[in-house]
Amino acid sequence: MFFETLPSKYLENAVAELAKLPGVGRKTALRLALHLLRQDKSQATLLGHSLVELREKISYCKICHNISDTDLCPVCSSTSRNRSIVCVVEDIRDVMAIERTGQFNGVYHVLGGLISPIDGIRPEDVQIESLRRRLEANPAQEIVLALAATVEGDTTAFYIYRHLKQFELSFSTISRGISIGDELEYIDEITLGRSIQSRIPYQQTLVSEKR
Amino acid sequence: MFFETLPSKYLENAVAELAKLPGVGRKTALRLALHLLRQDKSQATLLGHSLVELREKISYCKICHNISDTDLCPVCSSTSRNRSIVCVVEDIRDVMAIERTGQFNGVYHVLGGLISPIDGIRPEDVQIESLRRRLEANPAQEIVLALAATVEGDTTAFYIYRHLKQFELSFSTISRGISIGDELEYIDEITLGRSIQSRIPYQQTLVSEKR
Repeated sequence: MFFETLPSKYLENAVAELAKLPGVGRKTALRLALHLLRQDKSQATLLGHSLVELREKISYCKICHNISDTDLCPVCSSTSRNRSIVCVVEDIRDVMAIERTGQFNGVYHVLGGLISPIDGIRPEDVQIESLRRRLEANPAQEIVLALAATVEGDTTAFYIYRHLKQFELSFSTISRGISIGDELEYIDEITLGRSIQSRIPYQQTLVSEKR
Repeated sequence: MFFETLPSKYLENAVAELAKLPGVGRKTALRLALHLLRQDKSQATLLGHSLVELREKISYCKICHNISDTDLCPVCSSTSRNRSIVCVVEDIRDVMAIERTGQFNGVYHVLGGLISPIDGIRPEDVQIESLRRRLEANPAQEIVLALAATVEGDTTAFYIYRHLKQFELSFSTISRGISIGDELEYIDEITLGRSIQSRIPYQQTLVSEKR
């Protein structure tokens, strides 16, 4: 039977590389490769070059390690941000999500990943040591741990807490609880249990709703 | 508010190009780009180069227009295939799917697309004229139209039929009907109606099951 493998090494290479992307299997990879073959030649070329350039030329903010073409990212170079509150996040998507809320006026520290022994990501692989040096040079008052509510997020938060508790700092974490629009009966027990434990005075919600 | 746009033109370029792929939105594109940034540098480079190479170096079988690194694809260069039956398909995935069935011993003609006025794909944009020239040079007995059961597939099949009926050829199309494992109550009316119209003698199914 023919075509158990693809009849072109160029197609095979492209499919094999595309299939390494998260969420892309061999079938999707072939669909994407054939799509590119039907488009204008420039589209595949632009995509290919943009990916090579991305990895080779990308640079990071010297203070918070967020992705930035300039030495300092827009947040770190802003004069209106409160440098005594440092929000620790996993990556640029979290910075964008928090910025969109318009509720945070401090600065960020972007870890670039979460500690995950299963995936071979050790504390040295994320920007924790640089956070320690940053706090030594520029003391802050509060660290907000805004990490995912997963095993990796909790592990990383705990590691950072232990690693930095020598500093005179208050640590906080974004609140866990019920999302706006959630119905109680569909919420998992742990979330619901924690949200009862960490209940807040009703008047307080009224105040924060006012804005 | 910061970060409504991405703070790096390299990231922005990569995300914009990735988001042009079918089924990939801006959010997925950003996830893919950040994934590549966390991997070994070589992965992004290999992917990027493979896509550029794909579009620049890919070549096609001189007879059937299937993707092939050699002048003739494995099917067209095989001595055991029946050249008097030509199966017309949209792209290489269809060739692979039909080859996997092991039920076809003819040769293929790969259109490279289907006629679709809505998407601006005209008859000249797919390999129909080359099919006419091919049949002029090497007469065949039967054309099997194995195209998708969609408006585009039906339009293309009808166009090919009209364009080639000058030749002494029998035209056939793969049968439409009920998939193995389907339950009648879940099948759409058109499919079920056609499968009743084009019912086949029961004994015939017994024969084809024997293999």
